[in-house]
Amino acid sequence: MSSFGQICAENLEKVRARKPLIHNITNFVVMNSTANVLLAAGASPVMAHAANEVEEMAGFAGALVLNIGTLTDIWVESMLLAGRKCTELKTPIVLDPVGSGATALRTITAKRIIEETSVSVIRGNASEILSLRNTDSKTKGVDSLHSVDEAAEAAKALAIELGTTLAITGPVDLVTDGQRVLRVANGHPLMSYVTGTGCAATSVIGAFAAVDDDTVTATATALAYYGLAGEKAGAMSNGPGSFMVNLLDALYNLTPEDVKAGSKISADA
Amino acid sequence: MSSFGQICAENLEKVRARKPLIHNITNFVVMNSTANVLLAAGASPVMAHAANEVEEMAGFAGALVLNIGTLTDIWVESMLLAGRKCTELKTPIVLDPVGSGATALRTITAKRIIEETSVSVIRGNASEILSLRNTDSKTKGVDSLHSVDEAAEAAKALAIELGTTLAITGPVDLVTDGQRVLRVANGHPLMSYVTGTGCAATSVIGAFAAVDDDTVTATATALAYYGLAGEKAGAMSNGPGSFMVNLLDALYNLTPEDVKAGSKISADA
Amino acid sequence: MSSFGQICAENLEKVRARKPLIHNITNFVVMNSTANVLLAAGASPVMAHAANEVEEMAGFAGALVLNIGTLTDIWVESMLLAGRKCTELKTPIVLDPVGSGATALRTITAKRIIEETSVSVIRGNASEILSLRNTDSKTKGVDSLHSVDEAAEAAKALAIELGTTLAITGPVDLVTDGQRVLRVANGHPLMSYVTGTGCAATSVIGAFAAVDDDTVTATATALAYYGLAGEKAGAMSNGPGSFMVNLLDALYNLTPEDVKAGSKISADA
Repeated sequence: MSSFGQICAENLEKVRARKPLIHNITNFVVMNSTANVLLAAGASPVMAHAANEVEEMAGFAGALVLNIGTLTDIWVESMLLAGRKCTELKTPIVLDPVGSGATALRTITAKRIIEETSVSVIRGNASEILSLRNTDSKTKGVDSLHSVDEAAEAAKALAIELGTTLAITGPVDLVTDGQRVLRVANGHPLMSYVTGTGCAATSVIGAFAAVDDDTVTATATALAYYGLAGEKAGAMSNGPGSFMVNLLDALYNLTPEDVKAGSKISADA
Repeated sequence: MSSFGQICAENLEKVRARKPLIHNITNFVVMNSTANVLLAAGASPVMAHAANEVEEMAGFAGALVLNIGTLTDIWVESMLLAGRKCTELKTPIVLDPVGSGATALRTITAKRIIEETSVSVIRGNASEILSLRNTDSKTKGVDSLHSVDEAAEAAKALAIELGTTLAITGPVDLVTDGQRVLRVANGHPLMSYVTGTGCAATSVIGAFAAVDDDTVTATATALAYYGLAGEKAGAMSNGPGSFMVNLLDALYNLTPEDVKAGSKISADA
Repeated sequence: MSSFGQICAENLEKVRARKPLIHNITNFVVMNSTANVLLAAGASPVMAHAANEVEEMAGFAGALVLNIGTLTDIWVESMLLAGRKCTELKTPIVLDPVGSGATALRTITAKRIIEETSVSVIRGNASEILSLRNTDSKTKGVDSLHSVDEAAEAAKALAIELGTTLAITGPVDLVTDGQRVLRVANGHPLMSYVTGTGCAATSVIGAFAAVDDDTVTATATALAYYGLAGEKAGAMSNGPGSFMVNLLDALYNLTPEDVKAGSKISADA
């Protein structure tokens, strides 16, 4: 029951009370599950990607989530338009660099978004995050080749270089802005057998960032809440199908008291 | 056990017997869940949006469902092509003006579809429906700011103005063609915690409109059937994840006798 | 416990050990469920469709799955680019001609893919497969008008003509390369009440083709594994909602021993 547990409880309460509008420009695979995760968490999701609409929609949002899976050039332009609008309005932008490092289009796009907009948080697996620094890093599709530990020092340096908060998710998640390093030990192995669980985590970070100006605590508490729901779901599931169902139920049912007691967030010395 | 219950039972039987092809041009978030709802109800869903295909596909359809979530200009053109084809063939067109009032693109598109095609039914929340009349109406993303009651008188006037049937869904749904007003009291609060439940309701209206020429009774009985399935699902669910699973099961398992007994449709004096 | 059961067990073991990357260019309706089916089976799915990315992504893949539901011209070009790359690399290409025969765009596209790339396996319902030969064949949307039996002789001839393996799925699936004919009797009627179960079967064929060079046994064993999971799921489900959940759990939980014992593959004399 660290003070992080307290912050996690408060952020969850704020999300449910304020129901922040989270504008997602995300990939086709996860749109439905992402929207359902955000609704279960208490936030209000919207998906909109038309160039002639995204600035207007982003203008209402509590946070913008950009996810580069199933990307095309037209979508990149819309992401940049929405991202610049949120940069102007100081609305948090959360980036999920799905498959960055796997193809040039994805790596280049992730870097462009980082350069041309003010990204608050980037969440990915270790390979994806490393690809943002090191062009030699290779990812196999969207799966990670690197461990979270290998990526820790690189992440701190990269967070400073980019002036953003990084979240590298794995068995234990690592969150850093280059100064502080938080680790989140919540989660369940079945998460890797359901598509879009990482993408949905990114959107939950968006919801928490909409109510908590400290992007490090917003990110870590979002991951703890989400991972704790995964633990509850995993304990009662027979496989990935029932896991996803139970994950949504758990996200909906977890109380601030539950997350205060169950979140496993620790700070590096 | 009103006569509306009898009509609801008959319409459900007809959908299952005839398995009408429902052509959906809908948003990316709900394509999967909409198709699953239509299949569970007994209809035959198809999704097709290419400009060089939609007229041919719409030509086979028992109803066309147009849904403006995740819209772009190219999709608008396809919706209009398919809509004009169905207008020509007198095939029912059901419109879901998702987020109309929230952005100019959506409001303008909804109005264009209404002007350029012969829309039989429009289903939305109160803000979306009001936005079709009043440019001052604002929606917060795709959520409603107005109650169904506020919208009732406006809906009757708007239905007459547009020559269409309107369905404003909420805790109690309101269906009107400007003359008759039906209210449907079926439903469950968990519906608002699952994305696309409104969009799927619109497609079920399409399926019922394919077998019932009276768009007012088709719409009200579709909403009663769908809402009753929601009640059954809600009674046995632990949250939004299990709710969606149970909703599909209930749509599949409800018998004509069940809907005759359980539908809660009433007519205003 | 035929030798086919043994091959089925070995292929499942290989998929889980090698986790082949399956590159899907597929329709919007089924992206999420297809990815989840592949993950549950033990494969590694990726969806990518940008013209400036598909060749690079296809270059990493163990198999390429092309699915022509929700098609547009831009997607056709990407499918051809990825398909030519895999032809060059001798990577298996599996085609799902969704709705071929229903509209000209789909029929023409399916034929173009077959002509311009080296397709290893085509899986569809009988109408779709027949449409590839006979322009008089009509499909109603994406549902089949023809039985598997009617299609058997046509399939053998067509397989020879096209130099590919054909899989016609129905109550009993038929797999032929024009010489051998295998029949797979696994499956469950609820599969036809869930959208994308056929599309996901096609992707599972891709996963098995990535580890088994004999496309006839790869296809039949993939369908047996998938159909057996459907049987397990169907036995414990209340309708199509719970069926899909249980299908994913069963795909995840079935052991090589289970599929060796439960697969129902027979060879025609």
